[in-house]
Amino acid sequence: MGQNLILNMNDKGFTVVAYNRTTSKVDHFLANEAKGTRIQGAHSIEELVAKLKKPRKIVLLVKAGSAVDDFIKQLEPHLEKGDIIIDGGNSHYPDSIRRTKELESKGLLFVGSGVSGGEEGARYGPSLMPGGSTAAWPAIKEIFQKTAAQVNGEPCCDWVGETGSGHYVKMVHNGKSSLSIEYGDMQLIAEAYDILKRGLGLGEDEISEIFTKWNRGVLDSFLIEITANILKFKDDDGAPIVTKILDKAGQKGTGKWTAIAALDAGTAVTLIGEAVFARCLSAIKDERVRASKAINGPKREPFHGDKQQFIDDLEQALYASKIISYTQGFMLMRETAKELDWNLNYAGIAAMWRGGCIIKSVFLGDITKAYQKNPKLESLLFDDFFNKAVHNAQEGWRRIIAQSVLWGIPTPAFSTALAFFDGYRSEIVPANLLQAQRDYFGAHTFRVLPGKENSRLAAGEDIHVNWTGRGGNVSATTYNT
Amino acid sequence: MGQNLILNMNDKGFTVVAYNRTTSKVDHFLANEAKGTRIQGAHSIEELVAKLKKPRKIVLLVKAGSAVDDFIKQLEPHLEKGDIIIDGGNSHYPDSIRRTKELESKGLLFVGSGVSGGEEGARYGPSLMPGGSTAAWPAIKEIFQKTAAQVNGEPCCDWVGETGSGHYVKMVHNGKSSLSIEYGDMQLIAEAYDILKRGLGLGEDEISEIFTKWNRGVLDSFLIEITANILKFKDDDGAPIVTKILDKAGQKGTGKWTAIAALDAGTAVTLIGEAVFARCLSAIKDERVRASKAINGPKREPFHGDKQQFIDDLEQALYASKIISYTQGFMLMRETAKELDWNLNYAGIAAMWRGGCIIKSVFLGDITKAYQKNPKLESLLFDDFFNKAVHNAQEGWRRIIAQSVLWGIPTPAFSTALAFFDGYRSEIVPANLLQAQRDYFGAHTFRVLPGKENSRLAAGEDIHVNWTGRGGNVSATTYNT
Repeated sequence: MGQNLILNMNDKGFTVVAYNRTTSKVDHFLANEAKGTRIQGAHSIEELVAKLKKPRKIVLLVKAGSAVDDFIKQLEPHLEKGDIIIDGGNSHYPDSIRRTKELESKGLLFVGSGVSGGEEGARYGPSLMPGGSTAAWPAIKEIFQKTAAQVNGEPCCDWVGETGSGHYVKMVHNGKSSLSIEYGDMQLIAEAYDILKRGLGLGEDEISEIFTKWNRGVLDSFLIEITANILKFKDDDGAPIVTKILDKAGQKGTGKWTAIAALDAGTAVTLIGEAVFARCLSAIKDERVRASKAINGPKREPFHGDKQQFIDDLEQALYASKIISYTQGFMLMRETAKELDWNLNYAGIAAMWRGGCIIKSVFLGDITKAYQKNPKLESLLFDDFFNKAVHNAQEGWRRIIAQSVLWGIPTPAFSTALAFFDGYRSEIVPANLLQAQRDYFGAHTFRVLPGKENSRLAAGEDIHVNWTGRGGNVSATTYNT
Repeated sequence: MGQNLILNMNDKGFTVVAYNRTTSKVDHFLANEAKGTRIQGAHSIEELVAKLKKPRKIVLLVKAGSAVDDFIKQLEPHLEKGDIIIDGGNSHYPDSIRRTKELESKGLLFVGSGVSGGEEGARYGPSLMPGGSTAAWPAIKEIFQKTAAQVNGEPCCDWVGETGSGHYVKMVHNGKSSLSIEYGDMQLIAEAYDILKRGLGLGEDEISEIFTKWNRGVLDSFLIEITANILKFKDDDGAPIVTKILDKAGQKGTGKWTAIAALDAGTAVTLIGEAVFARCLSAIKDERVRASKAINGPKREPFHGDKQQFIDDLEQALYASKIISYTQGFMLMRETAKELDWNLNYAGIAAMWRGGCIIKSVFLGDITKAYQKNPKLESLLFDDFFNKAVHNAQEGWRRIIAQSVLWGIPTPAFSTALAFFDGYRSEIVPANLLQAQRDYFGAHTFRVLPGKENSRLAAGEDIHVNWTGRGGNVSATTYNT
């Protein structure tokens, strides 16, 4: 990442000083990748700081956690009022909130910036999501927006908002965090591949062609594009290399962050949750292999329907599920922004994600339009464009899931997306029964449904019914026996 | 809880001293509920401690968190070596691990005990799950086992294990924690109710009869029983009161605990996860009401099939999903026990849950048998009884989900249970594509599938393919620009 980001900034006409704890890495970089560029090296922090123009702009790309604080401590004594420390790593946003406050109290400026796009993005144009000390933005704006990916002449970089909002927004979108939108996108694509392979019995080349075709439509995106490329990538013996890859998906273990963020916000980001759990299930490979021998699936009839219709339904299932995934992701951001009193520019966020990063897609352009039309949009499903899209998609979406369920092909993400959709559009969900159960066994009380009030069921009151005639009304309190 | 537990212990022939910070509560309790019993009161900690036999056994029922530590601090100066502090609240198990060590270092003994069953359980026989200072068990065994619920003459109480294992095991089973098995049970029942009501169009009385019938079969359990009672419970105007209850389910917000435990353990407890998210979705009632007007469901054909067959299928769907839910819960305990080096008595845990508590069921007896037969059982699905049960259930289970999906009735828990089942029994899941994608965009590397090794794909190595011909092999490192 670091090397490519430096090379990228150099290409854009900025003079960059490279520094690494391990100075031999700096020398190797200057003698090779950076050969013949304006890139300079530094062998010490003193040298680094001395070589930088004021106000100094220092980007850290170090491991999230204490390494960031250690590095900041090492830098501080050498810096002057107005210098800017930019954390381009995958820091947890509460740390960035804290660092902004600490450094501002010392007259320094802090920016926590999401940097996304992997090695290619860093080299040719990442998505940059800076947030923190607002006073720092004018000083770094040109560098950031020129270095970032450009889509239709617009940089995939804008000021996100206060304190930790840059890293927060990255967390929600980015693969380094397990509740990220990216996890959902990847899982949905994996399920579509599985349905085409195990359901329709297609080979990787045929499936690659389908993804190539899909990449010209509503699903046009980086992940669909690389999936098409991956599926046709052959090993030396001509077999698709993907069929030789161990089906154990890793996670960076930083998933907790967004899991907690989602639970704090009480937001049902079910799609990304299922994507994480699907990776957990993939990880117990040996147990799955034993289970595959001990458990039989359903009796399978061969597919008699219209294959092309089925493939078109699958495209719609993937599209509709993706709409739900992003609906949930923006709900999560909405709830967190409320809680932390941030003013998030949702249209800008979607625009930033359009280029450079792994979830870049035409789709994100439609989200930007939706929030430009209505910055206070409650949910993507209330936007005309997405509302129509979901209505068009739902019949095929349902057919795909029903068929996969009967076939015995797991579709955790497709299914949870549809369950959310059907729950979200339900005026009444069976939670009334849950509330009755909780009041029955734990005197947890319930509220009356509007329109059903009466003398016994008063509006706005916590109502307890003595369902059994026993028990009564005692509630938990301090006792010692 | 406290009052009822004291009354319960008094009934079992133990002399109990009641104390509460608010002494008037003690007096009121002695003058009313405790009138004519052997229960004594205390108006100060000194008086409480003075009245207790040595070694003193002091049960705290206070709010989880600092209140427990505060109370322990107040008690400590008055206690002697060998005295036992028992935390019967809903403490987070890492706190109980800490408290066990702290108090043992001071010569005192600590027990963190799950106490479950709500107000009725506390009064007539709770499920007690004590763990902590093993030396304390002989001193409290008789009180605990006599106070606990009895099932077929066996107490729903046994020693769980080391340090925080009592509160941990409670967390996994208990409704106070959002990844609990109980959440899954409740959500599954709610979905069955919804399918019968919105799908088959049955009324609460008919549905109550179905649950009553189910309660005589494999689903025989407290929650099915009370659901039948709830559905036929009428308001004064003769309408089922459940239809007047606001469909917003609350959670105690302690869900984070098990969510984190599950993510730490990397266990796919999808069913309970979906149950929590279903509550989150129920909570945004106003948004759902607006959405119900803006979004239409699928065209619905009336049900033409065999109603009784459908109801029997639904019973099987509920049963199979419940088997998956408990399979996941025991997987989570298994992984955590590995991590914390606990020796958990799984047969005992299931037995403890059989009575007193909210998930009590015949089902738990079958789990006890499974772990008695094979204490090292890898998963419930490998046990003959449950393996056969799931095979018998799966066709109907699939038909129910397929039909609900086409109807537009949300079944998040049924669906995720089936997706887990189908994923678990899959030798190959499409995580190979995820790994290819991660290597493509982030050089995250992958492993080769056993049996597919060759000179380029070596076993046990982290393999990177240069999918694009660009980018190369740079990986994240420390850089400043």
